[in-house]
Order: sequence, then structure tokens, then C-alpha cells
Amino acid sequence: MNELYRYLTLAASNDWRRQDERQRSEDKAEFVSAVEGGEGIAVHAYSLVGTRGDADLLLWVLAEELDAIRAWEARCAATRLWAQSSRPYAYLAARRPSPYLGGHRHADGEAERPAGPVGDLPYPVVYPMTKKRSWYALPREERARIMAAHFATGHRYPDIRIHTGYSFGIDDQEFVVAFEVPDVRRFVSLVSDLRDTESSSYTERETPIFVGRAMPLREALDHIDGAVALAELAR
Amino acid sequence: MNELYRYLTLAASNDWRRQDERQRSEDKAEFVSAVEGGEGIAVHAYSLVGTRGDADLLLWVLAEELDAIRAWEARCAATRLWAQSSRPYAYLAARRPSPYLGGHRHADGEAERPAGPVGDLPYPVVYPMTKKRSWYALPREERARIMAAHFATGHRYPDIRIHTGYSFGIDDQEFVVAFEVPDVRRFVSLVSDLRDTESSSYTERETPIFVGRAMPLREALDHIDGAVALAELAR
Amino acid sequence: MNELYRYLTLAASNDWRRQDERQRSEDKAEFVSAVEGGEGIAVHAYSLVGTRGDADLLLWVLAEELDAIRAWEARCAATRLWAQSSRPYAYLAARRPSPYLGGHRHADGEAERPAGPVGDLPYPVVYPMTKKRSWYALPREERARIMAAHFATGHRYPDIRIHTGYSFGIDDQEFVVAFEVPDVRRFVSLVSDLRDTESSSYTERETPIFVGRAMPLREALDHIDGAVALAELAR
Amino acid sequence: MNELYRYLTLAASNDWRRQDERQRSEDKAEFVSAVEGGEGIAVHAYSLVGTRGDADLLLWVLAEELDAIRAWEARCAATRLWAQSSRPYAYLAARRPSPYLGGHRHADGEAERPAGPVGDLPYPVVYPMTKKRSWYALPREERARIMAAHFATGHRYPDIRIHTGYSFGIDDQEFVVAFEVPDVRRFVSLVSDLRDTESSSYTERETPIFVGRAMPLREALDHIDGAVALAELAR
Amino acid sequence: MNELYRYLTLAASNDWRRQDERQRSEDKAEFVSAVEGGEGIAVHAYSLVGTRGDADLLLWVLAEELDAIRAWEARCAATRLWAQSSRPYAYLAARRPSPYLGGHRHADGEAERPAGPVGDLPYPVVYPMTKKRSWYALPREERARIMAAHFATGHRYPDIRIHTGYSFGIDDQEFVVAFEVPDVRRFVSLVSDLRDTESSSYTERETPIFVGRAMPLREALDHIDGAVALAELAR
Repeated sequence: MNELYRYLTLAASNDWRRQDERQRSEDKAEFVSAVEGGEGIAVHAYSLVGTRGDADLLLWVLAEELDAIRAWEARCAATRLWAQSSRPYAYLAARRPSPYLGGHRHADGEAERPAGPVGDLPYPVVYPMTKKRSWYALPREERARIMAAHFATGHRYPDIRIHTGYSFGIDDQEFVVAFEVPDVRRFVSLVSDLRDTESSSYTERETPIFVGRAMPLREALDHIDGAVALAELAR
Repeated sequence: MNELYRYLTLAASNDWRRQDERQRSEDKAEFVSAVEGGEGIAVHAYSLVGTRGDADLLLWVLAEELDAIRAWEARCAATRLWAQSSRPYAYLAARRPSPYLGGHRHADGEAERPAGPVGDLPYPVVYPMTKKRSWYALPREERARIMAAHFATGHRYPDIRIHTGYSFGIDDQEFVVAFEVPDVRRFVSLVSDLRDTESSSYTERETPIFVGRAMPLREALDHIDGAVALAELAR
Repeated sequence: MNELYRYLTLAASNDWRRQDERQRSEDKAEFVSAVEGGEGIAVHAYSLVGTRGDADLLLWVLAEELDAIRAWEARCAATRLWAQSSRPYAYLAARRPSPYLGGHRHADGEAERPAGPVGDLPYPVVYPMTKKRSWYALPREERARIMAAHFATGHRYPDIRIHTGYSFGIDDQEFVVAFEVPDVRRFVSLVSDLRDTESSSYTERETPIFVGRAMPLREALDHIDGAVALAELAR
Repeated sequence: MNELYRYLTLAASNDWRRQDERQRSEDKAEFVSAVEGGEGIAVHAYSLVGTRGDADLLLWVLAEELDAIRAWEARCAATRLWAQSSRPYAYLAARRPSPYLGGHRHADGEAERPAGPVGDLPYPVVYPMTKKRSWYALPREERARIMAAHFATGHRYPDIRIHTGYSFGIDDQEFVVAFEVPDVRRFVSLVSDLRDTESSSYTERETPIFVGRAMPLREALDHIDGAVALAELAR
Repeated sequence: MNELYRYLTLAASNDWRRQDERQRSEDKAEFVSAVEGGEGIAVHAYSLVGTRGDADLLLWVLAEELDAIRAWEARCAATRLWAQSSRPYAYLAARRPSPYLGGHRHADGEAERPAGPVGDLPYPVVYPMTKKRSWYALPREERARIMAAHFATGHRYPDIRIHTGYSFGIDDQEFVVAFEVPDVRRFVSLVSDLRDTESSSYTERETPIFVGRAMPLREALDHIDGAVALAELAR
């Protein structure tokens, strides 16, 4: 229950997009090999094509140790795609037991699940979140009461799964919240409902919001330069 | 009533602007072909030349499924123009019934219309919108009362048509609001009137605002590099 | 009283600045020809050299129709200077009668003057402006009273002329305010005096502020690459 | 007592940094010649190397007329170094008598000194400053009382000299405040003391803060590309 | 107790990343030589690979005099790596006795330690910090009381060491706070606990937060372009 989460986005430069198709294909293969060969980590890939305008790829990295993440990122840094991309958003967070759940446990609760995505749902939604400082001035029991109402709304959407990361002091937000979602409209509905909860008024910031599409890394890369579309055309 | 809206802006790089005219013409044809050949989607094009300084083109994309949008965007990503442009603003939203209209319906109401622009008016105005959290702390009936006054002001401008998209949890704003407008001065008048409504005080942010001009995509592209002006000069 | 104002700034890229002198001279001539040959519009040029660090040129464009502005901007977009510049700031606004003047008119009042600059004063000052939403919650008469005190301060500076544009709903600010000024220190004095008025407390934002210098467009362009200084040296 | 101050920062591009040493040396000589040959102005140069990460050089320009500043900046714009740099921060301000000093004068007071730096102290500190609008809603006498306490703290640091510029309406801040300082730790102490004054609570913004080092312009330029260090190594 | 701290981050450009391996290796050796040969300063290097997306390297520089920092930075500026990098974040601060500790001293207290990192812990955490102005309006004794509770929370984490720098008036923040930390999850726990203290409500801003990894400078540079990973692969 103390694994580290690293969220990393990639935006390909126009320089790279203008390389010829064969070169791009080789660069993607090199990148896949670097990403997938890391030790002590697990990596999940999501395409941001179609949902953001400022990033193309989201990687969700899990590790027990920060050094494993660093070693893995150095592997990535040795690739040609990395040297022709930028990382417009990157987040670091750690798993911890929720201070508001106490001894309360239920079968599909976060604390009972292994770290990281289960992977059975197509759309991850990820965002950094920071609460107003006035939240922390409330008595613990008051916060627990407010969070209970928040959780209750979430429980009305059992088909949506949450993963909470804690970034206090190690990144610019307090939390990185990730969801696995069956359909984006379903998530619009949940978040719209959550606006009416008391907890909502204590949110300082919860953007940018990333909606990804789970897929193999190579396929996600093939979305960036449209190779996936060309392949379809050629069929 | 649950279609997806994707709004995508494009800004051509100076690298592309400096390509020779024949190359630019071929690039535009390639882009038109990619944009218009998508499956499961409809695309409307608007020129931003003359109204913004940071984006040249606005595309309003409609689809039933997010995967259709992604597949379409991958098609676009395979073009030379895409590889020499940036996407300074991009929004994702979904249609939903308004929570404030209840069973109320009227002939030209939003819920009665098909998704997307009717297309009979020259100027779309599009902007992302977020309300203050204090709005959501109001009782539902209070909000309904305030929204009714807001709608009443809108009804004084029956020549202006609204399209509301909901982005809760799937993009950095809560709404993407789009209007079809006969003249921009008419819209200045409406928005100026709306400032005096109570609902106005609950707005957290409603910029950037995009005023487009409806036209065929090729013509919108010919505005970016001034080919439309050169053609006129040659006549 | 419903003309459109387009304010457009231009910042030359270092790529363009490094072109040889003859090429730059040709590019400037081409740009002057594009700017000055538009139909249905009038354009006034101001140098920002010496007052801003992020833009070199300010154009103040007047037109009856938005399509004329768009057509004109497409003409500009066909030039080499445009293709090697950026437009860091751009604003769109429309003239309207002030809601606070009622039937009140005076000889040199805004509503009595034709649209756009008179042109007898060297320094235009232009900025976008947005009021706090609490302003619009005040009763109309209260606002009229506060604005009357604001106007009274302005009337103590009869040598300074104001031009108000309304951007509600068509750009990211509510107003674009332009002044014609005999000396910048005189304007510092006016704005300093205005800080003490009640209206000042309702300002949400009134930056960036552009101080220009009225001059022929070619001369303003010759300030960007210092050709005006080289010419002086050669005399 | 109504001179104009222009503060201009310069950041050399990596393109320029990668020119060969001889070319850079020629470019620096050309820039020095352009900067120092202006008419009707005085220029003071400060290195920002070692204190900022986003600008390399600070120029403090004094003139009686804005046209002299513009003509001077056009001279600078004709140089190769300008064409390979950016101006990340630039400010315009004018001297005026303080509205809070009344007839009060003392020997080393600002109003008694000529415009611009005395030049006997190594470190200028320069920053733009804007007060909260609530400040201007206070009665004049109340403001005078609060400023008197502010001045009293300043008087405990007679080795630190202040220069106040007024930017109301002619730039994005209200003031540009400059200090001449014998040691940066001494200034940390003064500003820390000022935090406890009542006037401090009326500050809206007083960043970015630039700490410079007074030196001849050529030497400041030789800090940008490290030529000053290479010279030392060669000794 | 009045040493200067300079924190400097470096982000390698894609231009540099695309140099061939031999050239990059030479550039790194040149940079190490420049960094380590400064006079009157000490430099500590930390890798940001794996924790940030916008900077690759953090240098923590200590000196008695600002001129030594400037001379050292000019040395760095003469290198090829500097000319192909940017410095996205840079901070300047000075050590001072805490105004809230009074005569209180304890063995491992900050004031008893020499300046700079002890170096026995792997992870430095560094961030700029600014307090709300309302903090400074509190009576001194009230602030001392609140800080005592803040310190008490810190004392529950004796394995975490703090270093406080003061930037009042010499940089855009009030403080630069640095920690030496045995594990990032331990620091998440401390900062999470601090949220519940009264002092937390007086924080205006404490981002961006940099988590580094202590290592020799050459090794940190070898993480930027992945040379450290290639070396591992070759073993």
C-alpha cells in the first residue's frame, strides 16, 4: 500500500512528425523496447489523441522504488523519440491508506486492490488535485463526515473505479486521482453529481484532466503520426 | 441526446506558411481529404482569421463514440499540415438534458434539435465555461429560479441559437457553450444583457471566446495563408 | 455607432530580423501594400518599439463588417512578413452607445465623433478591460452615479480623448479602451487620479497596456529592424 | 522630476550562444556601440547572470522624451545581438513627486536627487509593483499615515537608496521600484522588516524581482557567453 | 549564518539530445569541468530525471559572496551544454537566523549546522515558498506560537533535515526551503501532517516542488541523455 505512481505525458514535436515513415516506425519500435524493458516497474500506455490538444500519450508507471522509475526514465531518454518530444505534464504520487476510511473496508475498495489499473475498462481519467487550505482547518470528524457523503455519491457508480495517489510535498499538487471508466458520458454524470456534495466546495484545483484510451503502446504511438489510419486505408 | 462534441483549433506554423504555394495547396487538399473522410463523425469548419491572433481554424466535430473521434484525429495526424501546425485549444464535451429545464420543452429548444450546428447562420461563437463552486452549494430550486431568469434574457434574442456541451470530469472546463449568431454586434448585446442577471455572478471563467465564420474547410484553409486573397487579386 | 474595431499586434521573429537588409525592405513594402489595399476598412499604424518588449507593431483597424476585416487579414496573411511574425495580442470590439450617458451629449463626446482615432495626437494607449461581476449586481442608477464621477475625472483632462469598444461575448475581455494622448506623463496623471474614484474598485483586469506612437506604417516597420536608425546614421 | 525610465532585459538565444567566439565578440562590440551612441538618453548596464534564469542583461535607460527612447531602441534593433535575443521583461515608468511626502523634503530624499542611479553601489534591485485597489479606497490621510510608517522602516537603512517610477496607465504595473544596494543580504533584511508594516498588506504584486550587478556593458555581455571566464582562464 | 544559496535547474534542448553520443560525452565532460572548477563556491548536483517533466538537473550552489556565484555561472555559460539548454527555474536565497527560534538552540538545529546539505541522504526536496500577507499582520508572539506548533510536527520526523533560505526582495518568493529526505513516502507523510497545522493556512504558494536524487554531476548528466542506461545495457 505504498507503491509509487509516475504519470508521464509525451508530445511529439513537429520535427519528429516530419521524419519519413520508415524512420518514425523504427523510432517507435526503439521506444517500445525501452519502455517495456525496465526493471522493477510496470507501465500502462494510453492514447490522448482525440481528447487533448497538448499531449499525445499518457504513461502510467508503477514501482516500489523511485530509483527504478529514474532508471526506467533514463532508458526512455536514450531513444530518438524522446529526443524529439517534450513532456508537457508529469506527476509523481504514492499510494497510502485513506485517512478518512478508518478501519472500514469493502471488497472492491481501493485498499483491497493491487496498485495500478485493473485494465478491464477502456478509458482512464487522470488529474492532479489540490484542496483549499480551509479544508485542513476543519476538525477531523467534520472532514470524515464530508468525505463519507462524497464516497456515497461515488458508490452510486460501481462501474467506475478510483485510484488515489498522494503527492504532498513531492509534486505541485496534493493528489493524483485516476479513474477507470466504461464510457466518458458515465463519468460526466458522476462528476456532475459530485458538484452538489459539500466536499466539492473545498476543491482548489483539479485540472488538467486527461482522458486516455487503453491500448498497446505501439498502437498508441501509431495514433500520434496517424500510422494507424494509414494502415486502415491500406487494408 | 448524448452525442460527443470535439472542438479543435489549429494554428499553422511559420514553417508551413513559408512553404511554396503549390506545396501549401497540396497540403490543404490532403488535409481536406483526411478531415472529410472520417467514419461515424460529422465535421464543421470555421475560419478564425480576423477574430483571434493565436489560432487560425476551428473544427466542430460530432460523434456518437469517442473512438470515432480518435480514429478521425489519427487520420488528420497523418497529414503534412498537421505535422506543421499546433492545436492551441481543444475541448471535449457531451450533450445532456439540462437539469434546470425539467419536463419543460419548446419547439426550438435545444433538446428538440439534432446535435450540432443548424448551419443557417454565419458566425459560431464558442467558449469553455466554468461556474463558481458556490453555485453548486445553492439549493436546486434556487438554481432553477436563477437559470429561468437567465433563459428569459436569452429568449429575447430568438435569432441566436445555443448549443450546450457538458465537460464535467472529461476536460478542464465544466461546459463548452456554442452559439450560432447572425451578427457579432447582436451577440455583444445579448452577453451585455446577461451580465445583469443573477446567474452572471456565479461564472468563474468563460474565456477564451472564439468567433468563427462558417465556410467550406478548403476556403477556411485558404484564409490561413492568404490564398483566398491572392485568388481575388488574380481575378 | 456600431463600427467594429480590430486591434492587432505583430512581433517579428528573429528569423525575419536576420534576413538581409534588401529582403527585409522588400518584405516591408509588400506588407504595406497588403495592409493599405483592403476594401471597406481603415487601418492606423503605431510603433510599439520603446514601450513594449513583446510586440513591435500595433494596427487599429475599423470596419463596418467583420467579413471586411477577415478579407483584409487574409491579404496580410499572404505576405512574407506575416509568415515570419507572430500576433502576440489581438482584440475585437464594437462601438455602442454608453449605457450610462443616457440622452446626455456634449460637443466632443465619444458618441458625436466618427469611429476611430482623430489622429492629431502622437500617442495612442490601448488596453483590454474587464470589470468585476459585482459591478453588474449594482442597481443601474448606482452604476450611473459611479460612472458620472469617473467621467468627471476624465473631463479634467480635456486634452485626452477616449474611444470605447465593447467585446462582451466576442473576445476575452469586456471592453477595449483606447486613448489619444499628447504626452505619456499626462496619461500617468489621469490614470493615477482615476485610482481614487469608486469605479476603480470594480476593475477586474486592465492589462496589457499598449503605448504606441502614431506614424506611417512603413516608418513603424523601419523601427522593428532598426532601418530607421541606419538611415539616420547614413545621413 | 518627470524623466522617463525604461527598463529593458535581454536574453540571448541559444542560436547566438552557439556562434563562434570571434562572431560573438564582434556582435558585442556592435551592440555596445549602438547602446552607447543614443542621443538624449543615458543607459546603465547590469548583469543578471547568477541571479535570474530567464534574462541575462538589464538596461536602465533615462530620457526626457519617449521619442528618444524609441530612437535609441531602434538603434539597438539594428544589431545582430538584438536579432538573436528576446526581451523577456521590459518596463516603462515616469518620475513624479510622491503624493505622500507633501512639502516634506530631506537632504538625501528622492526628490532632491537627479534621475537615475548614483552608481556608487554594486547591486541594483528592480521590480514592478501594483497595489490592491482597496488601498485607493482609503482616505488620503490614512494612506499618508501608513506610508509614513513604511518610510520610517526604510530610513533605518540609510545605506539603501530608492528610485520610484510611476507606470499608471502606461504599463502593466503601477510602479517600477529600483534600489541601489550595498549587499543583497542587507536588502533581504530591509524587505523582511517591511513585511511587518501595514502598507505591506496592500501589495497586490511585486514580482519579478531583478538583482543586477553594475558593470560596464561590454563586461556584462562577456558574462552572457562566459567570455569573461575564458579570459580569466587564459591569464 | 549568512551564506548565499543559488538553486539552478537545467533542461537540455532536443537539439543537444540529438547530437551524437561522442559529442554529448565531450560536452558533459566540459560542463563538469566548468561546474567543479569555480572559486569560493561549493556545488551539489541532483538528477531530476524521473520526478519532473520540465527540468533535468538541479544544482545547489553555496557561496559567501554573490560575485563568486556570478563568476561561476559565467564559467558554466562558456560551455556547449549551457548553450544548448535552458534554465527553467532558478532561485537565490540567503541564510539567516530564524526570527521565531529566539535564543532556542538544539544540537541538530539548523543554526548549528554548516550551510548546505550534509549529503548523507539520497533525496533533496526543494521548493520556493511565499506566505500570505495576513501572516505578517499577526502579532510576533502569535506567529511564534504558530511556528512552534509547526516545528513540533517537524520534530516528529527527526530523519528529515531542513535548510531554510530567505529570498525577501532578492527573488520572486520569500523563502527557498530544502529538505534532505531518506524516502519520498516519508516526506509525503510529514507534509500531509503539516497540512493540519495552523501555519499551513498562511501559505500563499509553495510550488514548484523539486525532488532530486543526489549523485555525482557526471552521473546526473548521464541520466539526461540516457547514457547511464546504455552503459548498463552494454554490461
